[in-house]
Amino acid sequence: MNHFAVGIDLGGTMMKAALVERGQGLRHHIAIDTHAEKGPDHVIGRIQQAIEMMMKEAPTGDIAGVGIGVPGSVDWERSSVHYPANLPGWEVVNLRRTLQERLGRTLPVIVENDANVAGLGSAHYGVGRPYDSFIMITLGTGVGGAIIYRNTIFRGTTGAAGEIGHMSIDYEGPWDRAGVAGSIEAYIGQRFLSRHARYQLLTREPSIIHELAGEELKNLTPKMLYDAAEQGDEAAREVLAWAGHKLGVVLGSAINLLDLRKVIVGGGMSAAGDYILEPARRTVRRYVMPALRNDVEILRETLGNAVGMLGAAHLVFEYLDAHGPSSEPQ
Amino acid sequence: MNHFAVGIDLGGTMMKAALVERGQGLRHHIAIDTHAEKGPDHVIGRIQQAIEMMMKEAPTGDIAGVGIGVPGSVDWERSSVHYPANLPGWEVVNLRRTLQERLGRTLPVIVENDANVAGLGSAHYGVGRPYDSFIMITLGTGVGGAIIYRNTIFRGTTGAAGEIGHMSIDYEGPWDRAGVAGSIEAYIGQRFLSRHARYQLLTREPSIIHELAGEELKNLTPKMLYDAAEQGDEAAREVLAWAGHKLGVVLGSAINLLDLRKVIVGGGMSAAGDYILEPARRTVRRYVMPALRNDVEILRETLGNAVGMLGAAHLVFEYLDAHGPSSEPQ
Repeated sequence: MNHFAVGIDLGGTMMKAALVERGQGLRHHIAIDTHAEKGPDHVIGRIQQAIEMMMKEAPTGDIAGVGIGVPGSVDWERSSVHYPANLPGWEVVNLRRTLQERLGRTLPVIVENDANVAGLGSAHYGVGRPYDSFIMITLGTGVGGAIIYRNTIFRGTTGAAGEIGHMSIDYEGPWDRAGVAGSIEAYIGQRFLSRHARYQLLTREPSIIHELAGEELKNLTPKMLYDAAEQGDEAAREVLAWAGHKLGVVLGSAINLLDLRKVIVGGGMSAAGDYILEPARRTVRRYVMPALRNDVEILRETLGNAVGMLGAAHLVFEYLDAHGPSSEPQ
Repeated sequence: MNHFAVGIDLGGTMMKAALVERGQGLRHHIAIDTHAEKGPDHVIGRIQQAIEMMMKEAPTGDIAGVGIGVPGSVDWERSSVHYPANLPGWEVVNLRRTLQERLGRTLPVIVENDANVAGLGSAHYGVGRPYDSFIMITLGTGVGGAIIYRNTIFRGTTGAAGEIGHMSIDYEGPWDRAGVAGSIEAYIGQRFLSRHARYQLLTREPSIIHELAGEELKNLTPKMLYDAAEQGDEAAREVLAWAGHKLGVVLGSAINLLDLRKVIVGGGMSAAGDYILEPARRTVRRYVMPALRNDVEILRETLGNAVGMLGAAHLVFEYLDAHGPSSEPQ
C-alpha cells in the first residue's frame, strides 16, 4: 500500500498542501495564495496544481489519495463542501468529483471540515497522540471545534458535529455571526475579541498595546495583544485573561456533556498560549461538575497549523484502512 | 436465548421493577418503596426481592439478566454505582457482585445511570424508536441527560457522558448543587424552579396557583404550575414558558456540539408538556447555528417513566448481543 497522501488545508487567504508519510508526518509542504476572489474554478485549479506538485515529491511519484480540510460544513459522504466561509461564490461544490475529473483518475479525494481535520491531525501526529478521545478547539478568525472519539472524528447525524464556537455561555450575551446570543465566538472570535479589546483598552493609560495598534487602536489584533502581553503589558494580559475565562466556561459545558476530559487548543490564536489558557484552566474546573473534574486538562497543540494538513492526509489513510486500497469513494 | 429480562429503576423514594420481553415491552411491573433511609443493605435486599418476584412471572421462570438504572454515575464496567443522589450511605457499591452473591448465581447484572437508561428505553421502546441518534433530557428532581448515538449510549471516557443538566447557559448565573454557575439545573431542576416560581408569583395577583400552593406559596411544586396552567392560570403559564426558554438555550448548545437534531424530553416534569416545550422549540432555533437548524425537533417521551425500566432491561439484551448468552460480565 502507498504510505503517502496529500493533505490540503484550504483557507480563504492561503492554501497549504503537504505530502504526508503515514505515521511519519510532513515530507514536503507548500503554502500558496488561495486567490479566493477569483472564484471556485480558479481555486480548484490551484488545488489541482498543489496536488500535482506534492505528487511529484512522493518516492514513487504517486499517492494513495487526497484529503482536504475546508472552512465549512461537508456532506455525510465527505465529497462536497457547503457554503465555505471566506470563499466567495462557492455555495455547494463537489470537490471530490471535480478534482477526480481534473486529475483524470479515481484517486480517493476526501473532504472534511477544517476543525475536524485539525483534531484528526492532532490525534495521530500532534499533542493528541496519547489520548484516544478529546475535544479540539481551534481559535482563529472563527472558533471551530471537533470531537475526537476513539481516534476518529465524531460526526453526529450529518457530519457537522463539533460546533463548539456557537455554544452559548450567556443566553442574553452578544450575537455571533450565526445570530446565536452569547456564543463563545461572540467573545473570542478574532474580530469580536479585537473589538472587545479595543473598547476596553481605549480608556486605559497608554501602554505597549497602544503603540502596536496605532491611532485609536484601530488596527488592534489578537496577535498584538499577545505581543504586548509578552512585553509585560498588564492591560493586554487582562484582556487575554478575560477571553480565557470565557473559554473555560464553554469547555466546562462541553466536558459535562461529553465526558471527554482532555481539550486541545489549536488555531492561530492559540499562540497566545498561557495568557489565555491559564485563566481557562482555572475557570473550567468551576464549570465541570465535581464527579468529572479528575484528569481535566487543557493543552496547546504545539504543531500549530500543520495539524490541518496532517489530519487531511490522515483521512485518506483512515479511508483505506476501512475500505481497502483498491476501493474509491463514491 | 431467553427473551425476558428484569429492568429496575432505582429512585430515592420508589423503586420500579419490570419483567420486559425483548422487542415487546413491559410484561409485569411493580413499584415499591425504596426505604432509602434504611441504608444500602436493606435497599439491596428489596432489589433482590423485586428481581425474584419478576423472575417468577417469566414464562420459563427464569430471565436473561438484570439491568438497573441508578441515580448516580457508574464505572466503565457498569458494575458499581458511585455516590447515588438520594441514597444515603451508599458511596461506592458494587451492585453486580452483591446481587450475584445474593441471587447465588452469575446472572448478568448491568448497572447504568438513570438518564442513560431512559434514553436507551426511549430508543428501543419509546418515542426515540424512529431515530438512531438523539439527545435525551430528563426533567425531574435534577436535570439528567443522555446521548444516544447509533442506538446505544454514548458513554464518553469514563461512562459519565450526557450531563446536560450541568451545562451553563449563563456564566454569571445562579449556582446549582454541583457549584456550576448558570447551569440549566439551577433554573429548572425541581427545587430551583419551585423557588424561582415562588418569588415570581408571590407578587402577582392571587390566582389558581395561590390556591394550590398554600399560604405564601410555600408548597409550590412544578406539578402545581402545570395544573394551574391547565386551568388557564396565565402567571403559571408564564413561569413554565420562562423555564422552557432556558431549556431551549441549553438544547441549542448541545445540538451545535453534537449535530444530533432530535431531542426527547422525559422525566416527571415533562408532564408539563407544551407549556415548557413550545417555548423551548421557539428558543432552540435561535441558539442553533443556521446550518444545523433543519430537522431540529423537541419531542416528549409519551411512555413516561416506563422508559427507565425498559432501558434497564435492554442493557441485558444489548449485552447478550455483544457477548453471547453464555458469557457473564466480570
